[in-house]
Amino acid sequence: MTSFPGEVRIIPLRGIPEVRPGDDLCEFIMRACAQTGLELAAGDVVIVTHKVVSKAEGRVVTLGEIEPSDLAVRFAQENGKDPRQVEAVLRESVRVVRMDRGVLIAQTRHGFVCANAGVDASNVPGEDTVCLLPIDPDASAHTLRKGLSGATGADIAVIITDSFGRPWRYGITNVAIGVSGIEPLADYRGQPDQWGREMTASVIAVADELAAAAELVMGKTDACPVAVLRGYEYRRAAGSARELVMPAEKDMFR
Amino acid sequence: MTSFPGEVRIIPLRGIPEVRPGDDLCEFIMRACAQTGLELAAGDVVIVTHKVVSKAEGRVVTLGEIEPSDLAVRFAQENGKDPRQVEAVLRESVRVVRMDRGVLIAQTRHGFVCANAGVDASNVPGEDTVCLLPIDPDASAHTLRKGLSGATGADIAVIITDSFGRPWRYGITNVAIGVSGIEPLADYRGQPDQWGREMTASVIAVADELAAAAELVMGKTDACPVAVLRGYEYRRAAGSARELVMPAEKDMFR
Repeated sequence: MTSFPGEVRIIPLRGIPEVRPGDDLCEFIMRACAQTGLELAAGDVVIVTHKVVSKAEGRVVTLGEIEPSDLAVRFAQENGKDPRQVEAVLRESVRVVRMDRGVLIAQTRHGFVCANAGVDASNVPGEDTVCLLPIDPDASAHTLRKGLSGATGADIAVIITDSFGRPWRYGITNVAIGVSGIEPLADYRGQPDQWGREMTASVIAVADELAAAAELVMGKTDACPVAVLRGYEYRRAAGSARELVMPAEKDMFR
Repeated sequence: MTSFPGEVRIIPLRGIPEVRPGDDLCEFIMRACAQTGLELAAGDVVIVTHKVVSKAEGRVVTLGEIEPSDLAVRFAQENGKDPRQVEAVLRESVRVVRMDRGVLIAQTRHGFVCANAGVDASNVPGEDTVCLLPIDPDASAHTLRKGLSGATGADIAVIITDSFGRPWRYGITNVAIGVSGIEPLADYRGQPDQWGREMTASVIAVADELAAAAELVMGKTDACPVAVLRGYEYRRAAGSARELVMPAEKDMFR
Protein backbone atom coordinates (compact mmCIF):
# COMPACT_ATOMS: atom_id res chain seq x y z
CA MET A 1 0.00 0.00 0.00
CA THR A 2 1.39 3.40 -0.98
CA SER A 3 1.18 6.04 1.68
CA PHE A 4 0.33 9.61 0.67
CA PRO A 5 1.94 12.67 2.29
CA GLY A 6 -0.17 13.99 5.15
CA GLU A 7 -2.41 10.94 5.21
CA VAL A 8 -4.13 10.04 8.49
CA ARG A 9 -5.08 6.44 9.26
CA ILE A 10 -8.02 5.24 11.34
CA ILE A 11 -7.16 1.75 12.55
CA PRO A 12 -9.78 -0.35 14.36
CA LEU A 13 -8.46 -2.37 17.26
CA ARG A 14 -10.39 -5.60 17.41
CA GLY A 15 -10.20 -8.38 19.94
CA ILE A 16 -10.99 -6.47 23.14
CA PRO A 17 -12.97 -8.95 25.28
CA GLU A 18 -16.09 -8.00 27.24
CA VAL A 19 -14.88 -5.68 30.00
CA ARG A 20 -15.88 -6.26 33.64
CA PRO A 21 -15.46 -4.09 36.73
CA GLY A 22 -11.83 -4.09 37.84
CA ASP A 23 -10.46 -5.20 34.46
CA ASP A 24 -7.23 -3.60 33.27
CA LEU A 25 -8.13 -1.83 30.03
CA CYS A 26 -4.50 -1.00 29.31
CA GLU A 27 -3.63 -4.69 29.37
CA PHE A 28 -6.59 -5.52 27.09
CA ILE A 29 -5.47 -2.88 24.60
CA MET A 30 -1.84 -4.03 24.65
CA ARG A 31 -2.97 -7.60 24.03
CA ALA A 32 -5.29 -6.56 21.18
CA CYS A 33 -2.44 -4.55 19.65
CA ALA A 34 -0.19 -7.61 19.78
CA GLN A 35 -2.89 -9.77 18.15
CA THR A 36 -3.45 -7.12 15.46
CA GLY A 37 0.26 -6.70 14.84
CA LEU A 38 -0.04 -3.02 15.69
CA GLU A 39 2.81 -1.41 17.59
CA LEU A 40 1.74 1.86 19.22
CA ALA A 41 4.08 4.67 18.14
CA ALA A 42 4.77 8.26 19.14
CA GLY A 43 2.01 10.55 17.90
CA ASP A 44 -0.70 7.89 17.87
CA VAL A 45 -4.05 8.90 19.35
CA VAL A 46 -5.76 5.98 21.07
CA ILE A 47 -9.51 6.54 21.04
CA VAL A 48 -11.69 4.54 23.38
CA THR A 49 -15.46 4.49 23.68
CA HIS A 50 -16.41 5.34 27.27
CA LYS A 51 -18.51 2.23 27.64
CA VAL A 52 -15.50 -0.04 28.20
CA VAL A 53 -13.95 2.57 30.52
CA SER A 54 -17.17 2.85 32.52
CA LYS A 55 -17.44 -0.93 32.76
CA ALA A 56 -13.82 -1.31 33.91
CA GLU A 57 -14.42 1.38 36.52
CA GLY A 58 -17.60 -0.29 37.74
CA ARG A 59 -19.82 2.58 36.56
CA VAL A 60 -22.68 0.18 35.86
CA VAL A 61 -25.88 0.27 37.86
CA THR A 62 -28.45 -2.44 38.43
CA LEU A 63 -31.89 -0.87 38.12
CA GLY A 64 -33.23 -3.09 40.90
CA GLU A 65 -31.14 -1.11 43.36
CA ILE A 66 -32.72 2.21 42.41
CA GLU A 67 -35.71 3.72 44.21
CA PRO A 68 -37.29 6.18 41.75
CA SER A 69 -38.36 9.64 42.89
CA ASP A 70 -41.84 11.01 42.18
CA LEU A 71 -40.45 13.14 39.35
CA ALA A 72 -38.91 10.05 37.75
CA VAL A 73 -42.12 8.06 38.13
CA ARG A 74 -44.24 10.81 36.56
CA PHE A 75 -41.92 11.38 33.59
CA ALA A 76 -41.58 7.63 33.05
CA GLN A 77 -45.34 7.06 33.15
CA GLU A 78 -46.03 9.88 30.71
CA ASN A 79 -43.45 8.61 28.25
CA GLY A 80 -43.52 4.84 28.58
CA LYS A 81 -40.11 4.62 30.25
CA ASP A 82 -38.66 2.68 33.15
CA PRO A 83 -38.88 4.99 36.22
CA ARG A 84 -35.69 3.47 37.65
CA GLN A 85 -33.80 4.33 34.47
CA VAL A 86 -35.18 7.90 34.56
CA GLU A 87 -34.06 8.12 38.18
CA ALA A 88 -30.57 6.96 37.19
CA VAL A 89 -30.49 9.83 34.67
CA LEU A 90 -31.65 12.41 37.23
CA ARG A 91 -28.96 11.24 39.65
CA GLU A 92 -26.30 11.81 36.99
CA SER A 93 -27.63 15.30 36.25
CA VAL A 94 -26.68 18.64 37.78
CA ARG A 95 -29.13 20.60 35.59
CA VAL A 96 -32.03 19.53 33.40
CA VAL A 97 -31.89 21.44 30.10
CA ARG A 98 -35.02 19.96 28.47
CA MET A 99 -37.53 17.40 29.69
CA ASP A 100 -39.99 17.17 26.88
CA ARG A 101 -41.46 14.74 24.32
CA GLY A 102 -39.94 11.80 26.15
CA VAL A 103 -36.45 13.24 25.85
CA LEU A 104 -34.42 14.21 28.88
CA ILE A 105 -31.46 16.45 28.10
CA ALA A 106 -29.29 17.21 31.08
CA GLN A 107 -25.97 18.64 32.09
CA THR A 108 -23.63 16.16 33.74
CA ARG A 109 -21.28 16.96 36.58
CA HIS A 110 -18.51 17.21 33.95
CA GLY A 111 -20.41 20.03 32.22
CA PHE A 112 -21.50 17.99 29.20
CA VAL A 113 -25.03 18.53 27.95
CA CYS A 114 -26.47 15.38 26.42
CA ALA A 115 -29.46 13.07 26.28
CA ASN A 116 -30.04 11.10 29.49
CA ALA A 117 -26.92 12.59 31.11
CA GLY A 118 -24.95 9.89 29.34
CA VAL A 119 -26.85 7.00 30.95
CA ASP A 120 -27.21 4.24 28.39
CA ALA A 121 -28.53 0.70 28.29
CA SER A 122 -27.23 -0.50 24.91
CA ASN A 123 -24.29 -2.89 24.73
CA VAL A 124 -24.49 -3.49 28.47
CA PRO A 125 -24.98 -7.11 29.48
CA GLY A 126 -27.96 -7.91 31.68
CA GLU A 127 -31.59 -6.87 31.19
CA ASP A 128 -31.65 -4.45 34.09
CA THR A 129 -28.31 -2.70 34.01
CA VAL A 130 -27.36 0.71 32.64
CA CYS A 131 -23.98 2.25 32.04
CA LEU A 132 -23.01 5.67 33.45
CA LEU A 133 -20.27 8.01 32.27
CA PRO A 134 -16.93 7.68 34.09
CA ILE A 135 -16.68 9.84 37.21
CA ASP A 136 -13.73 11.77 35.75
CA PRO A 137 -13.12 10.85 32.09
CA ASP A 138 -10.03 13.09 31.87
CA ALA A 139 -8.50 11.16 34.76
CA SER A 140 -9.49 7.88 33.10
CA ALA A 141 -7.80 9.04 29.89
CA HIS A 142 -4.71 10.12 31.81
CA THR A 143 -4.42 6.78 33.63
CA LEU A 144 -4.79 4.85 30.39
CA ARG A 145 -2.26 7.08 28.66
CA LYS A 146 0.27 6.57 31.45
CA GLY A 147 -0.27 2.83 31.25
CA LEU A 148 0.06 2.64 27.48
CA SER A 149 3.07 5.00 27.39
CA GLY A 150 4.71 2.96 30.12
CA ALA A 151 4.12 -0.31 28.29
CA THR A 152 5.25 0.96 24.87
CA GLY A 153 7.64 3.83 25.65
CA ALA A 154 5.71 5.85 23.05
CA ASP A 155 4.42 9.38 23.57
CA ILE A 156 0.75 8.90 22.70
CA ALA A 157 -2.54 10.67 23.41
CA VAL A 158 -5.81 9.18 24.65
CA ILE A 159 -9.36 10.32 23.95
CA ILE A 160 -12.44 8.80 25.59
CA THR A 161 -15.67 9.21 23.63
CA ASP A 162 -19.43 9.09 23.76
CA SER A 163 -22.06 9.65 21.06
CA PHE A 164 -24.15 12.79 21.57
CA GLY A 165 -27.10 14.21 19.69
CA ARG A 166 -27.03 17.81 18.53
CA PRO A 167 -29.71 20.49 18.35
CA TRP A 168 -30.85 21.21 14.78
CA ARG A 169 -29.07 18.22 13.26
CA TYR A 170 -30.41 14.71 13.06
CA GLY A 171 -28.34 11.75 14.18
CA ILE A 172 -25.69 11.38 16.84
CA THR A 173 -21.94 11.80 16.41
CA ASN A 174 -19.03 10.69 18.50
CA VAL A 175 -17.42 13.38 20.69
CA ALA A 176 -14.58 13.55 23.19
CA ILE A 177 -15.53 13.35 26.87
CA GLY A 178 -12.04 12.61 28.24
CA VAL A 179 -8.72 13.85 26.89
CA SER A 180 -5.09 13.29 27.82
CA GLY A 181 -1.89 14.25 26.03
CA ILE A 182 -3.41 16.41 23.31
CA GLU A 183 -4.69 19.96 22.99
CA PRO A 184 -8.41 19.34 22.22
CA LEU A 185 -8.85 22.68 20.42
CA ALA A 186 -6.87 24.02 17.48
CA ASP A 187 -7.03 27.78 17.81
CA TYR A 188 -6.45 29.64 14.57
CA ARG A 189 -7.66 33.00 15.89
CA GLY A 190 -5.21 35.76 15.11
CA GLN A 191 -3.42 33.69 12.50
CA PRO A 192 -3.57 34.92 8.94
CA ASP A 193 -5.73 33.03 6.46
CA GLN A 194 -4.25 32.17 3.06
CA TRP A 195 -4.88 35.79 2.01
CA GLY A 196 -3.14 37.29 5.02
CA ARG A 197 -6.33 38.36 6.78
CA GLU A 198 -6.72 37.53 10.42
CA MET A 199 -9.15 34.68 11.13
CA THR A 200 -11.60 35.65 13.83
CA ALA A 201 -13.79 32.67 14.62
CA SER A 202 -11.70 29.62 13.91
CA VAL A 203 -11.32 27.45 16.97
CA ILE A 204 -11.64 23.87 15.80
CA ALA A 205 -12.67 21.12 18.20
CA VAL A 206 -10.13 18.64 16.88
CA ALA A 207 -10.67 16.17 19.73
CA ASP A 208 -14.31 15.91 18.69
CA GLU A 209 -13.29 15.45 15.06
CA LEU A 210 -10.84 12.70 16.08
CA ALA A 211 -13.63 11.06 18.09
CA ALA A 212 -15.96 11.27 15.09
CA ALA A 213 -13.31 9.78 12.81
CA ALA A 214 -12.79 6.87 15.21
CA GLU A 215 -16.51 6.06 15.23
CA LEU A 216 -16.28 5.29 11.50
CA VAL A 217 -14.37 2.09 12.28
CA MET A 218 -16.03 1.29 15.59
CA GLY A 219 -19.61 0.72 14.48
CA LYS A 220 -22.37 0.14 16.99
CA THR A 221 -22.75 -3.60 16.82
CA ASP A 222 -19.16 -4.58 16.04
CA ALA A 223 -17.86 -4.63 19.59
CA CYS A 224 -14.84 -2.61 18.45
CA PRO A 225 -14.43 -0.11 21.30
CA VAL A 226 -10.93 1.14 20.44
CA ALA A 227 -9.38 2.82 17.39
CA VAL A 228 -5.92 4.19 16.78
CA LEU A 229 -5.54 7.43 14.80
CA ARG A 230 -2.13 7.52 13.20
CA GLY A 231 -0.49 10.36 11.29
CA TYR A 232 -2.45 13.27 12.73
CA GLU A 233 -0.14 16.07 13.80
CA TYR A 234 -1.53 17.39 17.05
CA ARG A 235 -0.31 19.81 19.65
CA ARG A 236 0.93 18.02 22.78
CA ALA A 237 -0.63 19.22 26.02
CA ALA A 238 -1.97 17.80 29.26
CA GLY A 239 -5.38 18.30 27.71
CA SER A 240 -8.87 18.16 29.18
CA ALA A 241 -12.33 17.61 27.73
CA ARG A 242 -13.48 20.51 29.92
CA GLU A 243 -12.02 22.81 27.26
CA LEU A 244 -14.71 21.45 24.94
CA VAL A 245 -17.51 22.59 27.24
CA MET A 246 -19.02 25.92 26.23
CA PRO A 247 -18.51 28.35 29.13
CA ALA A 248 -21.88 29.23 30.69
CA GLU A 249 -21.47 32.93 29.90
CA LYS A 250 -21.06 32.16 26.19
CA ASP A 251 -23.82 29.55 26.09
CA MET A 252 -26.86 30.93 24.27
CA PHE A 253 -28.82 27.69 24.61
CA ARG A 254 -29.02 27.08 28.35
CA MET B 1 3.28 0.36 4.92
CA THR B 2 1.22 -2.50 6.34
CA SER B 3 -2.49 -2.09 6.05
CA PHE B 4 -4.72 -3.28 8.91
CA PRO B 5 -8.10 -4.97 8.36
CA GLY B 6 -10.93 -2.45 8.46
CA GLU B 7 -8.58 0.53 8.34
CA VAL B 8 -9.92 3.81 6.93
CA ARG B 9 -7.56 6.31 5.29
CA ILE B 10 -7.95 10.10 5.22
CA ILE B 11 -5.92 11.34 2.27
CA PRO B 12 -5.42 15.08 1.74
CA LEU B 13 -5.58 16.20 -1.86
CA ARG B 14 -3.16 19.04 -2.30
CA GLY B 15 -2.50 21.18 -5.35
CA ILE B 16 -5.99 22.59 -5.97
CA PRO B 17 -5.39 26.11 -7.28
CA GLU B 18 -7.39 29.16 -6.15
CA VAL B 19 -10.89 28.62 -7.53
CA ARG B 20 -12.67 31.36 -9.46
CA PRO B 21 -16.29 31.67 -10.65
CA GLY B 22 -16.91 29.33 -13.56
CA ASP B 23 -13.94 27.07 -12.81
CA ASP B 24 -14.42 23.33 -13.28
CA LEU B 25 -13.84 21.82 -9.84
CA CYS B 26 -14.00 18.28 -11.21
CA GLU B 27 -11.11 19.04 -13.56
CA PHE B 28 -9.11 20.62 -10.70
CA ILE B 29 -9.64 17.54 -8.55
CA MET B 30 -8.72 15.14 -11.36
CA ARG B 31 -5.53 17.12 -11.98
CA ALA B 32 -4.64 17.19 -8.27
CA CYS B 33 -5.24 13.42 -8.10
CA ALA B 34 -2.86 12.90 -11.01
CA GLN B 35 -0.21 15.09 -9.36
CA THR B 36 -0.66 13.23 -6.06
CA GLY B 37 -0.55 9.84 -7.74
CA LEU B 38 -3.97 9.06 -6.35
CA GLU B 39 -6.37 7.09 -8.52
CA LEU B 40 -9.97 7.44 -7.33
CA ALA B 41 -11.49 4.00 -6.75
CA ALA B 42 -14.93 2.55 -6.09
CA GLY B 43 -16.01 3.24 -2.52
CA ASP B 44 -13.93 6.40 -2.11
CA VAL B 45 -15.68 9.36 -0.51
CA VAL B 46 -14.47 12.66 -1.92
CA ILE B 47 -14.95 15.38 0.67
CA VAL B 48 -14.84 19.00 -0.43
CA THR B 49 -15.05 22.15 1.66
CA HIS B 50 -17.93 24.27 0.40
CA LYS B 51 -15.73 27.30 -0.05
CA VAL B 52 -14.25 26.07 -3.32
CA VAL B 53 -17.70 24.94 -4.49
CA SER B 54 -19.21 28.34 -3.65
CA LYS B 55 -16.37 30.12 -5.43
CA ALA B 56 -16.72 27.96 -8.54
CA GLU B 57 -20.46 28.64 -8.55
CA GLY B 58 -19.95 32.38 -8.17
CA ARG B 59 -21.51 32.45 -4.69
CA VAL B 60 -19.23 35.30 -3.64
CA VAL B 61 -20.59 38.76 -2.89
CA THR B 62 -18.84 42.11 -2.97
CA LEU B 63 -19.94 44.07 0.08
CA GLY B 64 -19.92 47.32 -1.90
CA GLU B 65 -22.97 46.07 -3.79
CA ILE B 66 -25.01 45.58 -0.62
CA GLU B 67 -27.36 48.22 0.81
CA PRO B 68 -27.82 47.34 4.48
CA SER B 69 -31.26 47.38 6.08
CA ASP B 70 -31.98 49.28 9.32
CA LEU B 71 -31.87 46.00 11.25
CA ALA B 72 -28.44 45.20 9.84
CA VAL B 73 -27.16 48.71 10.62
CA ARG B 74 -28.39 48.57 14.22
CA PHE B 75 -26.98 45.11 14.93
CA ALA B 76 -23.69 46.02 13.27
CA GLN B 77 -23.35 49.26 15.25
CA GLU B 78 -24.08 47.56 18.55
CA ASN B 79 -21.54 44.83 17.90
CA GLY B 80 -18.75 46.50 15.94
CA LYS B 81 -19.56 44.70 12.70
CA ASP B 82 -19.79 45.68 9.05
CA PRO B 83 -23.49 46.42 8.35
CA ARG B 84 -23.13 45.18 4.79
CA GLN B 85 -21.83 41.84 6.03
CA VAL B 86 -24.71 41.59 8.52
CA GLU B 87 -27.10 42.34 5.67
CA ALA B 88 -25.53 39.57 3.60
CA VAL B 89 -26.24 37.19 6.50
CA LEU B 90 -29.86 38.33 6.84
CA ARG B 91 -30.39 37.81 3.10
CA GLU B 92 -29.17 34.22 3.42
CA SER B 93 -31.49 33.57 6.37
CA VAL B 94 -35.04 32.26 6.41
CA ARG B 95 -35.29 32.39 10.23
CA VAL B 96 -33.15 34.05 12.88
CA VAL B 97 -32.62 31.63 15.78
CA ARG B 98 -30.50 33.90 18.01
CA MET B 99 -29.27 37.45 17.57
CA ASP B 100 -27.40 38.14 20.73
CA ARG B 101 -23.93 39.03 22.09
CA GLY B 102 -22.70 39.83 18.60
CA VAL B 103 -23.61 36.38 17.36
CA LEU B 104 -26.19 35.83 14.65
CA ILE B 105 -27.44 32.26 14.39
CA ALA B 106 -29.84 31.68 11.55
CA GLN B 107 -31.54 28.98 9.56
CA THR B 108 -30.58 28.90 5.90
CA ARG B 109 -32.89 28.07 3.05
CA HIS B 110 -31.44 24.55 3.13
CA GLY B 111 -32.63 24.14 6.74
CA PHE B 112 -29.19 24.33 8.33
CA VAL B 113 -28.90 26.32 11.54
CA CYS B 114 -25.50 27.94 11.88
CA ALA B 115 -23.64 31.13 12.69
CA ASN B 116 -24.06 33.87 10.09
CA ALA B 117 -26.17 31.60 7.87
CA GLY B 118 -22.93 30.25 6.48
CA VAL B 119 -21.67 33.63 5.26
CA ASP B 120 -17.93 33.75 5.77
CA ALA B 121 -15.08 36.11 4.95
CA SER B 122 -12.05 33.93 5.72
CA ASN B 123 -10.00 32.44 2.89
CA VAL B 124 -11.83 34.61 0.36
CA PRO B 125 -9.61 36.89 -1.72
CA GLY B 126 -10.40 40.60 -1.66
CA GLU B 127 -10.95 42.82 1.37
CA ASP B 128 -14.65 43.34 0.75
CA THR B 129 -15.92 39.99 -0.41
CA VAL B 130 -17.73 37.27 1.49
CA CYS B 131 -18.56 33.73 0.55
CA LEU B 132 -22.09 32.31 0.70
CA LEU B 133 -23.18 28.67 0.88
CA PRO B 134 -23.99 27.04 -2.47
CA ILE B 135 -27.62 27.49 -3.55
CA ASP B 136 -28.17 23.71 -3.52
CA PRO B 137 -25.19 21.84 -2.03
CA ASP B 138 -26.78 18.43 -2.72
CA ALA B 139 -27.01 19.34 -6.39
CA SER B 140 -23.41 20.60 -6.31
CA ALA B 141 -22.33 17.28 -4.76
CA HIS B 142 -24.32 15.36 -7.35
CA THR B 143 -22.78 17.27 -10.26
CA LEU B 144 -19.29 16.78 -8.91
CA ARG B 145 -19.95 13.09 -8.32
CA LYS B 146 -21.21 12.62 -11.86
CA GLY B 147 -18.15 14.38 -13.21
CA LEU B 148 -15.67 12.40 -11.12
CA SER B 149 -17.43 9.09 -11.78
CA GLY B 150 -17.47 9.88 -15.49
CA ALA B 151 -13.78 10.73 -15.52
CA THR B 152 -12.68 7.72 -13.47
CA GLY B 153 -15.38 5.10 -14.05
CA ALA B 154 -15.41 4.60 -10.28
CA ASP B 155 -18.54 4.51 -8.13
CA ILE B 156 -17.67 7.17 -5.57
CA ALA B 157 -19.56 9.41 -3.15
CA VAL B 158 -19.19 13.16 -2.62
CA ILE B 159 -19.71 15.20 0.54
CA ILE B 160 -19.57 19.00 0.68
CA THR B 161 -18.74 20.46 4.08
CA ASP B 162 -18.78 23.55 6.24
CA SER B 163 -17.60 24.12 9.81
CA PHE B 164 -20.44 24.79 12.27
CA GLY B 165 -20.45 25.70 15.94
CA ARG B 166 -22.57 23.67 18.35
CA PRO B 167 -24.63 24.67 21.38
CA TRP B 168 -23.02 23.60 24.67
CA ARG B 169 -19.70 22.60 23.12
CA TYR B 170 -16.82 24.94 22.39
CA GLY B 171 -15.14 24.98 19.01
CA ILE B 172 -16.44 24.30 15.53
CA THR B 173 -16.44 20.97 13.70
CA ASN B 174 -16.81 20.09 10.06
CA VAL B 175 -20.25 18.83 8.99
CA ALA B 176 -21.88 17.72 5.75
CA ILE B 177 -24.01 20.30 3.93
CA GLY B 178 -24.20 18.48 0.58
CA VAL B 179 -24.30 14.73 -0.01
CA SER B 180 -24.38 12.52 -3.09
CA GLY B 181 -23.97 8.78 -3.48
CA ILE B 182 -24.04 7.85 0.19
CA GLU B 183 -26.68 7.33 2.87
CA PRO B 184 -25.78 10.14 5.34
CA LEU B 185 -27.29 8.34 8.34
CA ALA B 186 -26.53 4.86 9.61
CA ASP B 187 -29.70 3.69 11.30
CA TYR B 188 -29.18 0.95 13.86
CA ARG B 189 -32.66 1.25 15.38
CA GLY B 190 -34.32 -2.11 15.70
CA GLN B 191 -31.05 -3.98 15.23
CA PRO B 192 -29.84 -6.04 18.16
CA ASP B 193 -26.85 -4.79 20.13
CA GLN B 194 -24.07 -7.23 20.96
CA TRP B 195 -26.29 -8.65 23.72
CA GLY B 196 -29.28 -9.16 21.47
CA ARG B 197 -31.27 -6.23 22.84
CA GLU B 198 -32.85 -3.85 20.39
CA MET B 199 -31.08 -0.49 20.09
CA THR B 200 -33.54 2.35 20.35
CA ALA B 201 -31.73 5.61 19.76
CA SER B 202 -28.83 4.81 17.49
CA VAL B 203 -28.99 6.82 14.30
CA ILE B 204 -25.46 7.89 13.52
CA ALA B 205 -24.76 10.91 11.33
CA VAL B 206 -21.95 9.22 9.43
CA ALA B 207 -21.77 11.96 6.78
CA ASP B 208 -20.97 14.44 9.55
CA GLU B 209 -18.37 12.07 10.97
CA LEU B 210 -16.79 11.69 7.53
CA ALA B 211 -16.77 15.50 7.17
CA ALA B 212 -15.13 15.82 10.60
CA ALA B 213 -12.51 13.21 9.71
CA ALA B 214 -11.68 15.07 6.50
CA GLU B 215 -11.11 18.33 8.38
CA LEU B 216 -8.22 16.67 10.22
CA VAL B 217 -6.14 16.77 7.02
CA MET B 218 -7.55 19.97 5.57
CA GLY B 219 -6.48 22.48 8.21
CA LYS B 220 -7.62 26.07 8.07
CA THR B 221 -4.58 27.75 6.62
CA ASP B 222 -3.27 24.92 4.43
CA ALA B 223 -5.38 25.60 1.37
CA CYS B 224 -6.22 21.91 1.19
CA PRO B 225 -9.94 21.96 0.34
CA VAL B 226 -10.34 18.31 -0.67
CA ALA B 227 -9.76 14.99 1.09
CA VAL B 228 -10.42 11.43 0.01
CA LEU B 229 -11.75 8.95 2.58
CA ARG B 230 -10.79 5.44 1.53
CA GLY B 231 -11.83 2.15 3.08
CA TYR B 232 -15.04 3.26 4.76
CA GLU B 233 -17.88 0.87 4.02
CA TYR B 234 -20.95 2.99 3.46
CA ARG B 235 -24.43 2.33 2.23
CA ARG B 236 -24.91 3.54 -1.36
CA ALA B 237 -27.88 5.86 -1.88
CA ALA B 238 -28.76 9.01 -3.78
CA GLY B 239 -28.25 10.79 -0.47
CA SER B 240 -29.11 14.28 0.69
CA ALA B 241 -27.84 16.53 3.46
CA ARG B 242 -31.48 17.36 4.17
CA GLU B 243 -31.65 14.05 6.03
CA LEU B 244 -29.19 15.60 8.50
CA VAL B 245 -31.54 18.47 9.31
CA MET B 246 -33.59 17.90 12.48
CA PRO B 247 -37.27 17.93 11.50
CA ALA B 248 -38.98 21.00 12.99
CA GLU B 249 -41.41 18.88 15.02
CA LYS B 250 -38.51 17.08 16.72
CA ASP B 251 -36.43 20.22 17.23
CA MET B 252 -36.45 21.21 20.90
CA PHE B 253 -34.14 24.18 20.34
CA ARG B 254 -35.96 26.35 17.83
